[in-house]
Amino acid sequence: MNREFDNLNTPKSLQFLNDSIFSRKDIFPDLHLLDGPLKPYRFSSSFDWRKMKLIVDSAAAWDAKFRVWNFMEGHKLFQKSHQTLSIDEQRRIANQRALVIFNENFYDFDDLALDSKVNSAVSSFEPSMLGKYKIPFDMFPFVLRFLGSDRIDHLIQAVDEMKIIGCFALTEIGHGSNTQSMKTTATYEQSSKSFVLNTPNFEAAKCWVGGLGKTATHAVVYAQLYTPDGQCHGLNSFVVPVRDPKNMLVYPGIIIGDLGEKVSLNGIDNGFMMFNNYKIPKDYLLSKTGDVNEAGNFVTQFKDPKKRMGVSFAALSGGRVGICEIATNYGVMAITIAIRYAASRKHFGPENSDVEYPVLEYQSQQYRLIPHLATVYALKFFSNWIGREYFDMMKKTFEGEKISPETGMEIHAISSSGKPVCGWMVRDLIQDCREACGGHGYLKCAQLGDLRNNNDPNTTYEGENNVLIQQASNFLLAVRSKGWIAFENASPLGTAAFLKDGDKILSMKWNWTKVGCAMKPEYLLTTFNWICSYMLEKTFNRVKILQQSGQSSFDVRNNSQTFHANTLAVAYGQRQVVAAFLEEIHKLSPDSAEREVLTKLLSLFAANLISTKYIGVLYESGFIASNGPNVNDLLQTGILALLTDLKNDAVSLVDSIAPPDFILNSPLGMSDGNVYKHLESYIYQTPDTFTRASWWKECVYKDFLTSKL
Amino acid sequence: MNREFDNLNTPKSLQFLNDSIFSRKDIFPDLHLLDGPLKPYRFSSSFDWRKMKLIVDSAAAWDAKFRVWNFMEGHKLFQKSHQTLSIDEQRRIANQRALVIFNENFYDFDDLALDSKVNSAVSSFEPSMLGKYKIPFDMFPFVLRFLGSDRIDHLIQAVDEMKIIGCFALTEIGHGSNTQSMKTTATYEQSSKSFVLNTPNFEAAKCWVGGLGKTATHAVVYAQLYTPDGQCHGLNSFVVPVRDPKNMLVYPGIIIGDLGEKVSLNGIDNGFMMFNNYKIPKDYLLSKTGDVNEAGNFVTQFKDPKKRMGVSFAALSGGRVGICEIATNYGVMAITIAIRYAASRKHFGPENSDVEYPVLEYQSQQYRLIPHLATVYALKFFSNWIGREYFDMMKKTFEGEKISPETGMEIHAISSSGKPVCGWMVRDLIQDCREACGGHGYLKCAQLGDLRNNNDPNTTYEGENNVLIQQASNFLLAVRSKGWIAFENASPLGTAAFLKDGDKILSMKWNWTKVGCAMKPEYLLTTFNWICSYMLEKTFNRVKILQQSGQSSFDVRNNSQTFHANTLAVAYGQRQVVAAFLEEIHKLSPDSAEREVLTKLLSLFAANLISTKYIGVLYESGFIASNGPNVNDLLQTGILALLTDLKNDAVSLVDSIAPPDFILNSPLGMSDGNVYKHLESYIYQTPDTFTRASWWKECVYKDFLTSKL
Repeated sequence: MNREFDNLNTPKSLQFLNDSIFSRKDIFPDLHLLDGPLKPYRFSSSFDWRKMKLIVDSAAAWDAKFRVWNFMEGHKLFQKSHQTLSIDEQRRIANQRALVIFNENFYDFDDLALDSKVNSAVSSFEPSMLGKYKIPFDMFPFVLRFLGSDRIDHLIQAVDEMKIIGCFALTEIGHGSNTQSMKTTATYEQSSKSFVLNTPNFEAAKCWVGGLGKTATHAVVYAQLYTPDGQCHGLNSFVVPVRDPKNMLVYPGIIIGDLGEKVSLNGIDNGFMMFNNYKIPKDYLLSKTGDVNEAGNFVTQFKDPKKRMGVSFAALSGGRVGICEIATNYGVMAITIAIRYAASRKHFGPENSDVEYPVLEYQSQQYRLIPHLATVYALKFFSNWIGREYFDMMKKTFEGEKISPETGMEIHAISSSGKPVCGWMVRDLIQDCREACGGHGYLKCAQLGDLRNNNDPNTTYEGENNVLIQQASNFLLAVRSKGWIAFENASPLGTAAFLKDGDKILSMKWNWTKVGCAMKPEYLLTTFNWICSYMLEKTFNRVKILQQSGQSSFDVRNNSQTFHANTLAVAYGQRQVVAAFLEEIHKLSPDSAEREVLTKLLSLFAANLISTKYIGVLYESGFIASNGPNVNDLLQTGILALLTDLKNDAVSLVDSIAPPDFILNSPLGMSDGNVYKHLESYIYQTPDTFTRASWWKECVYKDFLTSKL
Repeated sequence: MNREFDNLNTPKSLQFLNDSIFSRKDIFPDLHLLDGPLKPYRFSSSFDWRKMKLIVDSAAAWDAKFRVWNFMEGHKLFQKSHQTLSIDEQRRIANQRALVIFNENFYDFDDLALDSKVNSAVSSFEPSMLGKYKIPFDMFPFVLRFLGSDRIDHLIQAVDEMKIIGCFALTEIGHGSNTQSMKTTATYEQSSKSFVLNTPNFEAAKCWVGGLGKTATHAVVYAQLYTPDGQCHGLNSFVVPVRDPKNMLVYPGIIIGDLGEKVSLNGIDNGFMMFNNYKIPKDYLLSKTGDVNEAGNFVTQFKDPKKRMGVSFAALSGGRVGICEIATNYGVMAITIAIRYAASRKHFGPENSDVEYPVLEYQSQQYRLIPHLATVYALKFFSNWIGREYFDMMKKTFEGEKISPETGMEIHAISSSGKPVCGWMVRDLIQDCREACGGHGYLKCAQLGDLRNNNDPNTTYEGENNVLIQQASNFLLAVRSKGWIAFENASPLGTAAFLKDGDKILSMKWNWTKVGCAMKPEYLLTTFNWICSYMLEKTFNRVKILQQSGQSSFDVRNNSQTFHANTLAVAYGQRQVVAAFLEEIHKLSPDSAEREVLTKLLSLFAANLISTKYIGVLYESGFIASNGPNVNDLLQTGILALLTDLKNDAVSLVDSIAPPDFILNSPLGMSDGNVYKHLESYIYQTPDTFTRASWWKECVYKDFLTSKL
């Protein structure tokens, strides 16, 4: 079952493009007909929410997502319980749902970016499910093919026939990011032509293995390979049978356990695993990066063990790109709930009047939410951009085209910054949305707590954010060390090409004295260009000074992070978010209402970021000349004006990005805005709402105390 | 059962003060004897953690807390499950635990601030429990006494005998902060001498009533009082029987339901309630603020209905003060876990070396955690300060002393800023601690997810933060409108007294050119004084301009929040955190090691706050003169130096504030730092870790799909 390759030339389900897309009532429901508190906002918006919907995602992308969502809505397994299930039940149902979804063949591999929209649709429903089929049926066979020899073809065939279930065991209890320090060993035994796997102690147990806790039958295990001569040949990967598929019992010689409850994503059974002289056939070494020959000697085309594993890990990349989209989706859902609730919820009004205003009418509520709405749009265009770039690259690879090292390096750098930037921005956004919804936002059914918990691991997996962003700053510093001009060739994707003019940029000053100029997206991008150039130069100089003081390269790197490389790496990702957004705007017809509102959103996003995060940098550096304009005031004035401006568009702006009510699943955020009706219905339909507690006799305290103590 | 008053003169359990407090091994365990990764840090710390422990809380406070904790540790009901219980079970056990704790009489009402330490100890174990006995047995009878007539003495007696269980029903589904808009009505019926309660619709249902969902028998209900002539006399409070204590069934004429699962605090059964012509005796009106006479007319000493309810709500205050301490406790626990883990967890090391460093040795990890450690100390001293001031005031009230309106107003203002400041700072701190603990920090057993969820409602209840802080800015603006000099008398507690010199402060410039000066706590407080003066003046001018432009007072207030009143109110609270911390430092012997390290913590806290939040303000205003020193660089240099300085003290600094391991209950944060041993033990002892899933036959996907679809 080689899904990527088989379907490459079979586009499907695009027939609707021949019809009018607007006739698809699932994608474009008649929102303007819905009575309720959102109606006046919808009627006062300045643009067509349907046209906007086709700007943020293509018709094909929406079709792909709605195929998944419509299927789920009609399937009994996808009806959500009103009560939190036990961990065991959560694992069970995620497994069942994953199977059913996988079996539906929603993917369309002619366009891998479109394929990512299916993932995105699945994870919007429930993120645990995605890993439950992506890992065993996409990533696992892909890695076996990519790194293994034809001696394991029978395993690949078993995956294709869905007879075995794979997973990946890299991380150990004691080691995560530092993969070179893994302690699991695989010692070659010449007599039996097998590898003997051992785990020295609990600290070296493989852990966080998605799917291992209860369901995997095979694992790709990363272990230090030892030859009989006692020599270590570094980390290599092996495919290891761990459970008998017939009865799902763990094989003797292995201890496997479930890591237990997590903050969220409890549908995934993350497990840990320890080996005690556990033998696997020699052929189960994934041998493309290194092999053991007949004589028992290790042979490889790679001299540097780190490079060898680099090739191996490359096969696991793409996760960071996917997280940009998935995090953005969480942001979409949170802001949809919060904006619709703010437009429905009324609170106070002018003195001596019975009128109450929707809380969206209040400046402080606008400032809590509308900049985040702008963020969601910005991240949407950014994640679309990085998805396109990445999947284009992957497609070329599949077609046998060679990717330039510069392209590979740049996608690595921008995804190493982009994933943290998306995850962190969405983290702050969800929290503010939770608070902006007040007490009702604290109800589990409001979904904001779950969105927060689901987004939380995005800051950790696929590279812990603070460690990961060093990959971006390292890239920029390495190019910079060859001179600014080196950026000319180092940035085929254009994320850093502007830095070739770094010295020219650094000679600039802030020279916009009017709000209108200061808030222009093109000039805000210029300011971001300046911030990146300045932070790169500042960090580069810091590194030089530390080197000159005699510190080791290890110490130099560590001591140039805070206020330097760290800030640089984040600014680099944020600048690209601004750039991708602006690029998208430039594609639109100059006089369209959609372009106008998007321009405002970008202004708000970029100006607010500069005003809250970089104002110190702008001043300290002299970019803002002494006795120059009051930049902080210019930006703040511009931001306040945009809040008033965008307030009436906010509801339609979320309409253009929101998933259907079935997926959103929050009484506070339904498309008709009838919050209290939905809340009532939800609460009334929850079991136990009206029942007397089974322990009612304990309620009258005196009785309980005298009976029990 | 009048607990406050009965025990006022019976101090107890202070006998240990005659012994050497240091011999209390529960409070002062031999941490230096513990082997493990924390040992080298403990041995390199610059101060005595035990002396520090008695600086952050008094011996009496620690004794109070440890009495609670020791009791819990030895009681079977307080052993925590390794698996999340169902909502129903969580409610049941919180109820049982609350009863048992309440029955132990831990409170010592000679010192109300000490009393708050008992609350603090209880909520550190599990916050749901606290509300389960504070509301029915402390707050409920207090309000009945404070607002009711002697015609309800039989109810007070029933509470004392623990035969009935009370709760408070104020908030409605459609209205929270705006209490004047409540829709529940209580219409007086002269013929039956009773009030007839009605709820017009679900939107007017009372909700978020803690304890109502399953357990309350009586509620204090706030409703619009109507006399037979059809006139509305505004919001009044009534005591209403809602369930029969004999069988816990809801009385006819009332619908009561449980609001269901929340993001956290699920031990509390928050409920909602609707009335349908439900009658209560006339005497059940809490009549101190207004009554209905024999003729059926409403009589009150208060002319303004808002003032009348102000008196009534005053009886519910104190919650904000308590939240400062409770939020700080969550911060203490999170930072303890994260610092100990960072000192135990190893990660990378110099190239070509097998040595790995604890992650606490890395600059970027230090900057993620040590400023938060400083924050926890700062909030600790602040919450101690506000607790002392508040409880002193309350004690005087109980003793019949009249409190000046200025004192009442100031405690209202500073708690309206302090509660948001504490809740928000702890929110950000917990999140960073969660992320700093990487994947293992995402395990439920790490506790960081629960701490985050438990702190979350602190931003909402007892006044939604963004609405609440307006109380602080309104206070400052009102005094300012009488001239700077008016602050001389308006601030008996000293939180705003410095503003009497506002004009002088505003004429100052930043004139510290050396890092040592810039980082001096006294000068950082001066900078905060300047920030508050500046933001007050800026907001005051904004208000004037908006007024002059003809906006209504309602619009003026709303349009002067963002970047103005909002910033002002937060800065006012933060300045008081700095001031309270500095005051505490000034009490210490000048050459003590503890004073030195606390001074560093305060420097770090204040400088980091200024550098990340206020640098734009300092520059835009000209406080930093053009061509003056590079303040951003001065502060950042100072901060980086302090990180290196404080890194070796960090473990001992958490030892001085941490609760015992039993309470902390996180394998990542135990006092011996043996993270992996505790993690192993925790995971191995969790049921289902090693068991095959009951649904194992569904694991082999092909079988499941063919059998089920």
